[in-house]
Amino acid sequence: MTPEAIRAAAQRIYGHARRTPVLTSPFLDEIAGRRVFVKAEPLQVTGSFKFRGALSAVSALPDGTGVIAYSSGNHAQGVAAAAALRGVTAVIVMPADAPALKIANTRALGAEVLLYDRAGGESREDIGAAVAKERGLHLIRPYDDPDVIAGQGTVGLELAEQLPGDVSGDVLVCCGGGGLSSGIAVALADTRPDLRVRPVEPVGFDDVARSLDAGERLGNDRVSGSICDAIVTPIPGELTFPILKRLSGPGLSVTDEQALSAMAQAWLRLKVGAEPGGAVALAAALYHSDRIEGDAVTVILSGGNCDPAMMTRALAGL
Amino acid sequence: MTPEAIRAAAQRIYGHARRTPVLTSPFLDEIAGRRVFVKAEPLQVTGSFKFRGALSAVSALPDGTGVIAYSSGNHAQGVAAAAALRGVTAVIVMPADAPALKIANTRALGAEVLLYDRAGGESREDIGAAVAKERGLHLIRPYDDPDVIAGQGTVGLELAEQLPGDVSGDVLVCCGGGGLSSGIAVALADTRPDLRVRPVEPVGFDDVARSLDAGERLGNDRVSGSICDAIVTPIPGELTFPILKRLSGPGLSVTDEQALSAMAQAWLRLKVGAEPGGAVALAAALYHSDRIEGDAVTVILSGGNCDPAMMTRALAGL
Repeated sequence: MTPEAIRAAAQRIYGHARRTPVLTSPFLDEIAGRRVFVKAEPLQVTGSFKFRGALSAVSALPDGTGVIAYSSGNHAQGVAAAAALRGVTAVIVMPADAPALKIANTRALGAEVLLYDRAGGESREDIGAAVAKERGLHLIRPYDDPDVIAGQGTVGLELAEQLPGDVSGDVLVCCGGGGLSSGIAVALADTRPDLRVRPVEPVGFDDVARSLDAGERLGNDRVSGSICDAIVTPIPGELTFPILKRLSGPGLSVTDEQALSAMAQAWLRLKVGAEPGGAVALAAALYHSDRIEGDAVTVILSGGNCDPAMMTRALAGL
Repeated sequence: MTPEAIRAAAQRIYGHARRTPVLTSPFLDEIAGRRVFVKAEPLQVTGSFKFRGALSAVSALPDGTGVIAYSSGNHAQGVAAAAALRGVTAVIVMPADAPALKIANTRALGAEVLLYDRAGGESREDIGAAVAKERGLHLIRPYDDPDVIAGQGTVGLELAEQLPGDVSGDVLVCCGGGGLSSGIAVALADTRPDLRVRPVEPVGFDDVARSLDAGERLGNDRVSGSICDAIVTPIPGELTFPILKRLSGPGLSVTDEQALSAMAQAWLRLKVGAEPGGAVALAAALYHSDRIEGDAVTVILSGGNCDPAMMTRALAGL
């Protein structure tokens, strides 16, 4: 992955993906004990950063090429919206236990949804590959795809321009397979080398943090059981992990309760709706300040698609 | 009020007030039956557009001038934050029945809060004038102040640049005393005369709509009893009404239930946290489409400061 590839992706998605704002609040600064800068990707088209990578990938294909994707939801919505924008077919393979809202949104965006049994051990990779071959569709992986990583990296290009010049240090990124983290890491290494990506995961699903510690790709024991469904993945990506090993700082992990509390703070202090998996980086900034250095921290609030009941649960903690 | 005064205000608040994004969602377009463009002022500093007018006014005063304001909450937070930014004293007179969060926020932003009994008939105007005189503070009115109106008008300048060139027709604005509506109306008359402001109020508190119909300022029977506390005012402003009479289209009004539903849609489809009074314009776009003309409508989502219980109540309707 190169900065040039990310700049090319930025050109492909320009005018369709939103340049999301970087928000601040003195109340968040007080909790974190330092200045907190929050890049608000729930405000992105389809409610998460995934639209960037999806549109980057779909628009890199020859005109008219239909696509297929497997996803717990945000990548699904991103690919569905990108395909609709480009006027091509989209088939999405989703776990049957994904939030109802994500499944409904994906269908409403014009995609055909195929459900599979995640807990029962069905392999979305196998299903995706079979349908792609059968119907002649191009498979767009959620993170192990250079065009997807380049698209997510546009978050880093924007951050480099949006953050005040005196901000350095940690950039906390909600991390599943590592597409967003690795893309931002490459963009920042080129534009703002004083900023360093650190992946944030749910406790018990911290495969990237443990892999970074070990220097090799290690998997999770489970692939369900967290409310942070958007970022629960089996093992770091083949393409993303070498990038993170080279450029990222150590990982952080947060509990479900901390993710819920960060969701509540994002609503209360920034007026942004986040989902649990999209709030783990903010949770780390607020509740693990002892593991962060410097007088400022940057956070990617990565997505906001969850059921109302989950948001209500988060608000009940205030 | 002149476009030049609004441009001067834009210069005074530049770099401190945020240029808030204009958001869209195909799901909202479907409900409204036309394209919907939403200017998201809950993402403004202090969670509402009021920071614009407050900073415009405070920064127009001689350096070091302390200020006082009376407000149901959002103007209070705006003035408190603006005064803190300028390093001057702020005293805020607030109704004792304002949302607890707004009172707490105003204090946390460094202002001194004086509570009064709104339902019991105490006059905030009398209290504000007395304290201002006694302590030598400059009174910043929530809407009947040229510098405040000019500050709110910067929303209109931004809209003129942000909206696609083919968008014309109604711009629905949440309306209390008329500061935001009149400021935007002046800005748009100068920059995009094909766009027309229409004020939106709660049913039963539609003093501006009735005044526009009558051609003269008419008051409301009550000044409490709506969940849209932010925009319940006794009578259209002396400065704002003549502007609206000249430039605005007819008013619209929505029920509390419609405002709550619009709050829920703003969270679900835009990931923005709105308060009831800040969501009435979106409610009108979604639920009174028969009273709007054209293939597009623009909405100001004006603020997002409410207690968690109110947000939970809105979410329960989804």
